[in-house]
Amino acid sequence: MNTELLIDEVRLTPILIADPPLLNTQGVHQPYTPRLIVEVVTRGGVTGIGETYGDGKYLELARPLAAALAGRPVSDLNGLFALADEVCGDSWAADERVDAGGLRGVQTADKLRLSVVSGFEVACLDALGKSLGLPVHALLGGKVRDSVEYSAYLFYRWAAHPEGGEKDDWGAALDPAGVVAQARRFAREHGFSSFKLKGGVFEPDREIAAIRALAEEFPGQPLRLDPNGAWSVETSLYVAEQLKDVLEYLEDPASGTDLMAAVAAGTDVPLATNMCVTTLAEVPEAFARGAVQVVLSDHHYWGGLHRTRELAGICRTFGVGLSMHSNTHLGISLAAMTHVAATVPNLDYACDSHYAWQSEDVITARHVFRGGRLTVSDAPGLGVELDRERLAALHRRWLDDDGTMRERDDAAAMRKAEPQWETPTIPRW
Amino acid sequence: MNTELLIDEVRLTPILIADPPLLNTQGVHQPYTPRLIVEVVTRGGVTGIGETYGDGKYLELARPLAAALAGRPVSDLNGLFALADEVCGDSWAADERVDAGGLRGVQTADKLRLSVVSGFEVACLDALGKSLGLPVHALLGGKVRDSVEYSAYLFYRWAAHPEGGEKDDWGAALDPAGVVAQARRFAREHGFSSFKLKGGVFEPDREIAAIRALAEEFPGQPLRLDPNGAWSVETSLYVAEQLKDVLEYLEDPASGTDLMAAVAAGTDVPLATNMCVTTLAEVPEAFARGAVQVVLSDHHYWGGLHRTRELAGICRTFGVGLSMHSNTHLGISLAAMTHVAATVPNLDYACDSHYAWQSEDVITARHVFRGGRLTVSDAPGLGVELDRERLAALHRRWLDDDGTMRERDDAAAMRKAEPQWETPTIPRW
Repeated sequence: MNTELLIDEVRLTPILIADPPLLNTQGVHQPYTPRLIVEVVTRGGVTGIGETYGDGKYLELARPLAAALAGRPVSDLNGLFALADEVCGDSWAADERVDAGGLRGVQTADKLRLSVVSGFEVACLDALGKSLGLPVHALLGGKVRDSVEYSAYLFYRWAAHPEGGEKDDWGAALDPAGVVAQARRFAREHGFSSFKLKGGVFEPDREIAAIRALAEEFPGQPLRLDPNGAWSVETSLYVAEQLKDVLEYLEDPASGTDLMAAVAAGTDVPLATNMCVTTLAEVPEAFARGAVQVVLSDHHYWGGLHRTRELAGICRTFGVGLSMHSNTHLGISLAAMTHVAATVPNLDYACDSHYAWQSEDVITARHVFRGGRLTVSDAPGLGVELDRERLAALHRRWLDDDGTMRERDDAAAMRKAEPQWETPTIPRW
Repeated sequence: MNTELLIDEVRLTPILIADPPLLNTQGVHQPYTPRLIVEVVTRGGVTGIGETYGDGKYLELARPLAAALAGRPVSDLNGLFALADEVCGDSWAADERVDAGGLRGVQTADKLRLSVVSGFEVACLDALGKSLGLPVHALLGGKVRDSVEYSAYLFYRWAAHPEGGEKDDWGAALDPAGVVAQARRFAREHGFSSFKLKGGVFEPDREIAAIRALAEEFPGQPLRLDPNGAWSVETSLYVAEQLKDVLEYLEDPASGTDLMAAVAAGTDVPLATNMCVTTLAEVPEAFARGAVQVVLSDHHYWGGLHRTRELAGICRTFGVGLSMHSNTHLGISLAAMTHVAATVPNLDYACDSHYAWQSEDVITARHVFRGGRLTVSDAPGLGVELDRERLAALHRRWLDDDGTMRERDDAAAMRKAEPQWETPTIPRW
């Protein structure tokens, strides 16, 4: 093995990035949200970059993994999982620190570990691609399309955070007219022709009205609604019935495989999920029970780009649709999403991305959507470069933070406006 | 994209290789069997090699695919499937030329096409690895083990072919003593410690006696029996009951998902298959019905090394075991099998290989089993080199053949000894 491809050093840089006041069923996005930037440097002097979640529990797992990587081949991706189990596994048992709530579905130690591995895997693929002069998609067997379609990610939102944060000119969107105006601007600026509304914020009839308004404004175009599991089976079926003629799919109307299976049994509207199926372990039961018709892949959840391709193969085999989920992320992850999406023949839907909401980035040239699509880069690696000044500035913000923004907490952010706010118990409606 | 990595030319060389008189439920191996050697040459002057089945129907598909590859990136592996559909698809419909018999399970146009693609995919991976200075396993995400274990592949056999063919000094093996003697020699020469007997040749009690004799000779070592679907459910359950204390698994006792599911319901002996699950399309029903507990991967069947990894991910996800199947093959395929096996964490069993029976090869240095294992090569590409003189000689044999050996036909070979032989209808017992 070429010693130039051995890992010399791994650098971890936690940062805080600006996030607009986007509403969801748990609360509202904080003014700043943590991300972790991973740099893998080879002995040949090539640096590959990745990003993942940046909350404390991820950092805690990332540090020993980073330390364990030195001296290993940068191409050794299949081995990352066993290594992560080995170096991060003893600190807590697999069923410890399980958190059943949140927007990511059930959180387990395994899932956190996979999310950490994903940032390293992407950084290794970037370094490998740059070292070899090959784009990341070529390291995944090659692209099957030259561009990847993304959908507009519509949010109910406030005009500004109650306290602090960066300003933007989007204004509030709290009713159908506001949602439609937001969609129009997304369509105009980025060319998106597929729309997803983050729901679970208001009573279902209000959200139904917003989707109806979108259907009127964009007749025949794909629409999705995602209340993050906030509804009962009865409410889910009511919404599905009301919107069955216009929804491409309904995303996580209810929470967990039992309720999703009950909803699926009562409607022909396809159900998508990034909550009840977020790990391979959750696949067999959910598929056997017909609980989901579309799985939203997310390389951060599933442990990287190779695992995302594995998930795609499983979905193709079982006749389940495949789309792509997004949490708040920067341009490194968007590049990774685009590369892997380009290699998957059965990615049947426009991918989600928060990227259009992010005013800050750590790459030198922001991604530009044209006609709602990103061109798949053929440049070596991911095809993006780290902007070290921006990285340093955003890391400085993380260092200077008093700790309140270092952990994403949408409920805490909501309490700045509504002091009595508690994370709602689900089903909320 | 680096133009040195574009495909300049693809060469196809059909060959005939010597094969001993190994018996199975369909008949006996012919003195020579066809294989197709694929050479993919890049503009950078690097040649990658692959091999696959060489019967006429494979050649017929391989020729248009070879012609269509020039000018494409050698890294473009995901695109091979659509290309094969495009250039080979129109000549016959997907359900045409379906052959329900044979040792490979149901044969369809799709399966033949995947087998052809596999030879090209491996050749492309070899060329890519050689071009980049990386072993094939590194192009698949890296090895998770440094050596791969193989099992001894025991056959009932004659001492010599009734007509023609090469001679060997193995003698006949037609009873328990002969099978044990064969196993002892395999263990001594190659270090194998896991044994598979190709069954379906004699009445079940005679094969049970052979496995019992092996269990006595090699107590506690993994034993397998594979009658290629020759038994009824009742017979399968009888054999399972007789051998439940010594079998690692029973391979394709009965034919097809219905019968396999019925057998599985009646025994705790795990059932393995390379017949009822040989394509992704067959997976969901077989898994849902618990028809198989171990899938035998085979990169020739499944469309290459990437697809084999995908199958491995599916098996891991669904808690189904994974092993590896083999038909008659040469050292190029054995190298490919070893590379992909090295990357799969859940390859839980010693792999099958006919290689120890092959006296001829087209590579310059034969693989050597040590302790029943092959070391995973870290040399660029597959780590094997084509012996052009041998290739030319074996191709000459193919050219000189009057056509009788160009299509594998175990029943025809059997008729040389037993003129009345017809391919048995199954269940045979």
